[in-house]
Amino acid sequence: MKILFVGDIVGRPGRVLLRENLKQLESRFGPFDFRIANAENAAGGFGLTEKVMNELFSMGFHCLTSGNHIWDKKDFLEVLDSERRLLRPANYPPGVHGQGYGFFLSDKGTRVLVVNLQGRVFMPPIDCPFRKAEEIIRDSNAEVVVVDFHAEATSEKKAMGLFLDGKVSCVLGTHTHVQTADEQILPNGTAYITDVGMTGGHAGVIGMEKSGVMERFLKGTPSKFEVCKEGLILNAVVVEVDETTGKATNILRIYEVYEK
Amino acid sequence: MKILFVGDIVGRPGRVLLRENLKQLESRFGPFDFRIANAENAAGGFGLTEKVMNELFSMGFHCLTSGNHIWDKKDFLEVLDSERRLLRPANYPPGVHGQGYGFFLSDKGTRVLVVNLQGRVFMPPIDCPFRKAEEIIRDSNAEVVVVDFHAEATSEKKAMGLFLDGKVSCVLGTHTHVQTADEQILPNGTAYITDVGMTGGHAGVIGMEKSGVMERFLKGTPSKFEVCKEGLILNAVVVEVDETTGKATNILRIYEVYEK
Amino acid sequence: MKILFVGDIVGRPGRVLLRENLKQLESRFGPFDFRIANAENAAGGFGLTEKVMNELFSMGFHCLTSGNHIWDKKDFLEVLDSERRLLRPANYPPGVHGQGYGFFLSDKGTRVLVVNLQGRVFMPPIDCPFRKAEEIIRDSNAEVVVVDFHAEATSEKKAMGLFLDGKVSCVLGTHTHVQTADEQILPNGTAYITDVGMTGGHAGVIGMEKSGVMERFLKGTPSKFEVCKEGLILNAVVVEVDETTGKATNILRIYEVYEK
Amino acid sequence: MKILFVGDIVGRPGRVLLRENLKQLESRFGPFDFRIANAENAAGGFGLTEKVMNELFSMGFHCLTSGNHIWDKKDFLEVLDSERRLLRPANYPPGVHGQGYGFFLSDKGTRVLVVNLQGRVFMPPIDCPFRKAEEIIRDSNAEVVVVDFHAEATSEKKAMGLFLDGKVSCVLGTHTHVQTADEQILPNGTAYITDVGMTGGHAGVIGMEKSGVMERFLKGTPSKFEVCKEGLILNAVVVEVDETTGKATNILRIYEVYEK
Ligand SMILES: [Fe+2]
Ligand SMILES: [Fe+2]
Ligand SMILES: [Fe+2]
Ligand SMILES: [Fe+2]
Ligand SMILES: [Fe+2]
Ligand SMILES: [Fe+2]
Ligand SMILES: [Fe+2]
Ligand SMILES: [Fe+2]
Repeated sequence: MKILFVGDIVGRPGRVLLRENLKQLESRFGPFDFRIANAENAAGGFGLTEKVMNELFSMGFHCLTSGNHIWDKKDFLEVLDSERRLLRPANYPPGVHGQGYGFFLSDKGTRVLVVNLQGRVFMPPIDCPFRKAEEIIRDSNAEVVVVDFHAEATSEKKAMGLFLDGKVSCVLGTHTHVQTADEQILPNGTAYITDVGMTGGHAGVIGMEKSGVMERFLKGTPSKFEVCKEGLILNAVVVEVDETTGKATNILRIYEVYEK
Repeated sequence: MKILFVGDIVGRPGRVLLRENLKQLESRFGPFDFRIANAENAAGGFGLTEKVMNELFSMGFHCLTSGNHIWDKKDFLEVLDSERRLLRPANYPPGVHGQGYGFFLSDKGTRVLVVNLQGRVFMPPIDCPFRKAEEIIRDSNAEVVVVDFHAEATSEKKAMGLFLDGKVSCVLGTHTHVQTADEQILPNGTAYITDVGMTGGHAGVIGMEKSGVMERFLKGTPSKFEVCKEGLILNAVVVEVDETTGKATNILRIYEVYEK
Repeated sequence: MKILFVGDIVGRPGRVLLRENLKQLESRFGPFDFRIANAENAAGGFGLTEKVMNELFSMGFHCLTSGNHIWDKKDFLEVLDSERRLLRPANYPPGVHGQGYGFFLSDKGTRVLVVNLQGRVFMPPIDCPFRKAEEIIRDSNAEVVVVDFHAEATSEKKAMGLFLDGKVSCVLGTHTHVQTADEQILPNGTAYITDVGMTGGHAGVIGMEKSGVMERFLKGTPSKFEVCKEGLILNAVVVEVDETTGKATNILRIYEVYEK
Repeated sequence: MKILFVGDIVGRPGRVLLRENLKQLESRFGPFDFRIANAENAAGGFGLTEKVMNELFSMGFHCLTSGNHIWDKKDFLEVLDSERRLLRPANYPPGVHGQGYGFFLSDKGTRVLVVNLQGRVFMPPIDCPFRKAEEIIRDSNAEVVVVDFHAEATSEKKAMGLFLDGKVSCVLGTHTHVQTADEQILPNGTAYITDVGMTGGHAGVIGMEKSGVMERFLKGTPSKFEVCKEGLILNAVVVEVDETTGKATNILRIYEVYEK
């Protein structure tokens, strides 16, 4: 089976780009039996709203993952609890809204476990992502397992890849908004990439307009960040998984530039 | 002119790999008029020694850049002061050993200014890399300028790329040891990549063996890091620069896997 | 001369407490020839407004210092530029609104230089506070110099105290909102305390109500912080300075509990 | 009963000071039925050795707590496992050497549970100290419970105090090496102080000599830290606990200056 995973969608530019190009992408690299996207920045660059979430589901995604920004919009917490196709990192402590993993059916009826985890290096201190991963997978009995590891440090991401190698179908990094070139099949059959990248306007700084970001770096004071509308790119990976073994057989990196 | 820039060389595996393959690389992607490598991890994974430095210069590098690890070996500080072909980040405070930029002559006699800078996001607080960059370049009167921006955060790196766009020939990121797939020529003619990656054994975690790194992530306690000897890769970029304007005309990403 | 320095005023509870008790404080520990307070949290716990600032000046403060929170209210930036009795940390980069030091006249006509600085350990990376301090003091020609060092780490604060010992009248720490018990006259005549503490409702967590803070610690997700109205305390120090030499002769710690 | 808790002992100066003054301290503030000290810096400022540990036990301490530095001396890990009177923070992950809490008998035969915890703000990401505290206490059935919360941020420490208020006899902060002036009995009977401080040479920077620390702050490069031998102070608290209820009735702060 072929799984499409789209990197952090940043604001409206990212959503429009996706809607307009998903079909063509499928015709070139698909068909995709299962479609996931990281949506933590899909609404205005920070978090998610119900409307934006539904817009993404209507494009045909089976599951949306997220990360640290999913808590940005306060009135969204109830949606997090009720919409089971939307995940937040599983290693947030007990009592936190939403769910960190879920079981899904692909278009062809294959059962897929998707696990969302978050790193702790240079990020807020939450529960251990490694032990949480182990705990979820041990109990799951699933063949096909997709892990979105939302993390900053390359070391923590690669460590997770090796830690889960052979136990899951793929470990796909998100959060840095820059795609890495190290896609690979690890020795025991897990597809891995340090970061899938982002989908949206990349002309500025990781999806935001240059001016606000530069001001923060040059002055050290808060500034307003606006979603960047230029330099549209779509970052994703396509992972081929043998559904009988759960092992990945291929990982294809997609870095489409729609606008210079 | 063609400039070769090799990503962080990690220990002996990285050095041996380079020595054995540099010529063949040149025959495929060169000739390289100017050769640079980041050497902050070249000696046992942490810092540099005089012997290792000379080994690298003997391979034909015109200039070695570095980063936060260059201070790891204490008896190396005098070498930092005397060897002008070796750079450390220029935005360390006044009084620190070594130099942060230098002028070099390419094989064809073109004057090249190399500037080494270090980021501050998720890194020790030193002087502002943006203002330091501006100050060095303003006074330099050089056409061809190569910047190694040794930094962790993708946002700070891309911000530096845009900040220097049109003022330098290239801004090449280092430090994360994972190559990114976003090499590009920025609108005003500066070649850019968020991270060039690393050169050495990549089977473990960013150049180190898996076991020591895993222990630190799983237990939170110190552990011994050993250089990884397996999964040899060579990460580099080749930047083509018009030496009359100093503008980049092309950036080619090299990710050679010598051993799975 | 006697200088009163009041620790971070947190919201309305802190302001009301000050207004109601400043006179009585003066009758017990004064008279105070010069009065300073750190006001970075004076408006609702985050930043400052023009109205709140004027309320504080009307209580008789000669100078208000601040810190990282002074940027919280966006429409306040113009006031920062125009009101020269209000300081923000001096080691923010060039181009930032406001001023980092100022010359004032005490009630008895003594010239006082007040310098506001901010640490960088566990705080945003700005310019070096040590070199900035040196630069301001070198050029000042002032006898009486008060330094508010707004910083997190005890090590950085004590290092600043020793760095400026003998060059300024006092180095008074702020930012942690908990008063330390290490007030002392350093060997060369500078009065020092790691943190003056806070003024406001201390029953919760550093001036904020318990519930919002606990949620953040227990869940790792954002929560709303409300100013704490209970457990009112006033934290300050009184520094006696010989105005002919600029040396401190005494530092008295004030920790008044107005409500258990 | 009276419990003595001595703040982080730094190197030989701290140990000598303790040995020479413990008796006199007891005659003034005691008798102490139970004696604890934080020993994470007792051996040369970094970690602990078996010899130094035994030296401390021979002074009459019932229990030694520690913190992040306890892992500094590698050949000490076996001692951590075998010596049950020595604690390391309990919220390190499963599989880590040593124990995080223990039951002890006071001189008068009262059972005392000592729990060592470590914060996560500005510190390495380990397990949640709040949930770990709750878990240990729930299962303990102890009346008298002493908590050493080894943490950096004042907010996290006060939050722990309020979280455990009424459930333990005292929450005593360590790690910053500067004593705070906020000792108090919380509303439900738990004695609290943000930081007990340190015991050793305080003339430099938090127990270390000024020169090495200043170099790191001024240059941003590594430097050698030497234990400070001057400005000897002894920081401690004496907590009075009603052993039938486990509630604290008093907390006395001790800040003895033995040498200016
Ligand atoms: Fe994101
Ligand atoms: Fe994120
Ligand atoms: Fe490196
Ligand atoms: Fe580095
Ligand atoms: Fe404050
Ligand atoms: Fe502050
Ligand atoms: Fe300590
Ligand atoms: Fe510590």
